[in-house]
Amino acid sequence: MLNSIGVIGLGVMGRNIAMNMASHDENVAIYNYTPDLTEQLVTNREGLPLHPYYDVEAFVRSLERPRKIFVMVTAGSAIDSVIDSLIPHLETGDIIMDGGNSHFLDTERRFDQLNEHGIEYIGVGVSGGEVGARTGPAIMPGGTKEAYDQVAPILTKIAAQVNGDPCCVYIGPKGAGHFVKMVHNGIEYADMQLIAEAYSFLRVRLGLDVEEIADIFSSWNDGELKSYLIEITADILRKKDDETGLPLIDVILDQAGQKGTGKWTSLQSIDNGIASSIITEALFARYLSAVKAERVAAASVLGGPEARPALDKDVWIERIRQALYMGKIAAYAQGFTQYRTSSELYDWNLRLEEIALIFRGGCIIRAEFLNVISEAFATDASLDNLMLAPYFADKVQAYQTSLRQVVAEGALTGLASPCLSTSLTYYDSYRTANSNANILQAQRDYFGAHTYARTDREGMFHTEWQ
Amino acid sequence: MLNSIGVIGLGVMGRNIAMNMASHDENVAIYNYTPDLTEQLVTNREGLPLHPYYDVEAFVRSLERPRKIFVMVTAGSAIDSVIDSLIPHLETGDIIMDGGNSHFLDTERRFDQLNEHGIEYIGVGVSGGEVGARTGPAIMPGGTKEAYDQVAPILTKIAAQVNGDPCCVYIGPKGAGHFVKMVHNGIEYADMQLIAEAYSFLRVRLGLDVEEIADIFSSWNDGELKSYLIEITADILRKKDDETGLPLIDVILDQAGQKGTGKWTSLQSIDNGIASSIITEALFARYLSAVKAERVAAASVLGGPEARPALDKDVWIERIRQALYMGKIAAYAQGFTQYRTSSELYDWNLRLEEIALIFRGGCIIRAEFLNVISEAFATDASLDNLMLAPYFADKVQAYQTSLRQVVAEGALTGLASPCLSTSLTYYDSYRTANSNANILQAQRDYFGAHTYARTDREGMFHTEWQ
Repeated sequence: MLNSIGVIGLGVMGRNIAMNMASHDENVAIYNYTPDLTEQLVTNREGLPLHPYYDVEAFVRSLERPRKIFVMVTAGSAIDSVIDSLIPHLETGDIIMDGGNSHFLDTERRFDQLNEHGIEYIGVGVSGGEVGARTGPAIMPGGTKEAYDQVAPILTKIAAQVNGDPCCVYIGPKGAGHFVKMVHNGIEYADMQLIAEAYSFLRVRLGLDVEEIADIFSSWNDGELKSYLIEITADILRKKDDETGLPLIDVILDQAGQKGTGKWTSLQSIDNGIASSIITEALFARYLSAVKAERVAAASVLGGPEARPALDKDVWIERIRQALYMGKIAAYAQGFTQYRTSSELYDWNLRLEEIALIFRGGCIIRAEFLNVISEAFATDASLDNLMLAPYFADKVQAYQTSLRQVVAEGALTGLASPCLSTSLTYYDSYRTANSNANILQAQRDYFGAHTYARTDREGMFHTEWQ
Repeated sequence: MLNSIGVIGLGVMGRNIAMNMASHDENVAIYNYTPDLTEQLVTNREGLPLHPYYDVEAFVRSLERPRKIFVMVTAGSAIDSVIDSLIPHLETGDIIMDGGNSHFLDTERRFDQLNEHGIEYIGVGVSGGEVGARTGPAIMPGGTKEAYDQVAPILTKIAAQVNGDPCCVYIGPKGAGHFVKMVHNGIEYADMQLIAEAYSFLRVRLGLDVEEIADIFSSWNDGELKSYLIEITADILRKKDDETGLPLIDVILDQAGQKGTGKWTSLQSIDNGIASSIITEALFARYLSAVKAERVAAASVLGGPEARPALDKDVWIERIRQALYMGKIAAYAQGFTQYRTSSELYDWNLRLEEIALIFRGGCIIRAEFLNVISEAFATDASLDNLMLAPYFADKVQAYQTSLRQVVAEGALTGLASPCLSTSLTYYDSYRTANSNANILQAQRDYFGAHTYARTDREGMFHTEWQ
């Protein structure tokens, strides 16, 4: 009997995706460049229909046509090598899926390359980490709709399900799926950083201990902030270090890494005139976390403000909650603006309503409020900015005072809150009908004769300023 | 008699550079792709030794050897076309200079291309706009030191002079000159935006009229803020519109353009792990200025805070001055950190002390305080961050309260101050020995098994969080 799908690359993510498929009664051919991972998975296949191959040609021959091959290897040249090794064995209409975090422009290039061979290529964004891969990730496939329809029965089955709907829909042509996954990760960076800043305020400014803060995050997770990241932060804060008995968080070094997708999100926004400032501040926060030795040295040279009076805990815990929620709204507004603008730029016709829906389950940023985001775009598909949707406009109206107070107090007390601050400056910049950019434009015309537009009539003008 | 140098490209910048050279007794061959600009310059050459050619070969043959050709055409493919047209006529040791705003990586590519032909290539950063080009710009040449020595007599003569020193020194290999110019422009964006935010605070929050603000800028220009950008802002605010009689600034549309170098600065910083957040916020402010129609629509949907009480003008004018100065320090600290980090990355051996010195004259960011910056790096060439130099550490200690108050008041009053806010979060992030990045790293390990380091011993660790 032929296998219905094959998986190449049996690292953490590939192994779990393969087991996920096999758990849904698919006969899965498995192959890895080195045999060790294949053997390991065979040993631990838990009776699942995973069929090992140690040769690419035999692997391909074992598959039903059109062949469906899910590649889960490290993004970069490894995926090109796998593609090159597959091409001689494939036939017109066969389908290669790339489930890794490939850059969407690489996916577009590979799509074109395989198109010349008559082979379909689907760039599949997958979010959910190890557990999600095994039990149901969010899946964002980009390629031709025809190819997607061939693999949809399997992909929708292995995806997370929310209220009976799979967290997998066709995203759009070529690189669109990997693009949506990339910006998902940028939003994730911002969401994580906003949570970290809320934690700092509770810990440093309100002087709460780690267990109290864990309880606060748990209670927040019962309300409108309900989300995977809030939930795991509560878990994290409850974990004790086996060695020292301290809260584990207190022995973890404050240096955050990153693996590229958040950085790509910022690069793409900057390159295309999109103001994804909160997402980018989250990235810069990681960069500054990396220069730990410099920060330690600077701490003894650069002073902070004088100590400020204690704050009313209950009042400020609620303010921080509201500030965090409004920060999240602003960050997601930027991410979805990046989708809208890029969709126009690349002619992808992204359906923001559906993107929000698939983010509700499986992925790292899954959260209650993605339902409301989806409704906002369902009501108005051409909405310029998420903050303008009635639900969110009301919410930011109600919560802005809290965000203002938290940002102001952070500034006065010396507590760095880059993403909360940037959420507020984004909000205030975006709602400023008449900004100070006339100063910039006058300066540019003064020193570089760049000309300016006028408020009262058409045309471009230059002034002899001196 | 042979000409000592040739200029190709006779647009605004090229024409003025050529006249500048001829004013310093150089015989300058001039050539333009179309004859109109050449004829125009000949008509207006004011008796200067500018010698027109209408054919590349004749132009090249008219030059002393090694030939020195200064190209001033629009960055991009035009420069490649000029190079291709020159190669057949040049000989080993001849020197092409690119005075445009080319991307430094393009300059590196062209350097390698010409190197194969035995031709020297110098990427020359030029700042100063039209007037600077004619009367003395800041000049940042990158290439081989040997080639630079050949052109140094001319370049140092046409550069701005400060206290008898030319604002032109050898920067480093290949693309180093264009890189230094690029980041100069990034710093310029931040400087301009900080000034615009100070203006907004004076105008909107303190309710001062345009003439009062012009006087404030003039008075600031008599002190430590003394700089070209402060000076021209005062000029700008004094200018009346001929048509309406209003202050001209009030009829200039608040949409700021950009021509790429500031954007490249942000892209390069992000791509290389450098936290140039203030520079990038200045870019985002321009991007948000561009969506004027969206801002106008949002203004009627997204509310601001309740009105706040009037502020003491004299007290707050001084606070704004101090906030602006501290913002400038932070922005320049980022720019110079981008120089230091990139110099290590590309092995350029940039001398930050000298870069600060050449910025003192000719260029857009010329300012008194570049002397102090230069002294800081002269005292400690390996200084990690400008803010750590004793002069600046004292200054930020003295001024941080003002910056905190201005940022807090801006947040509470609904006045967007993205660069002032980011200057403060940069300062506070940089002086935070123990940050909240442990939360990020714990989250990453929870959902993605990315592992973390500990504070108390070596190694990378993973926790089974659930």
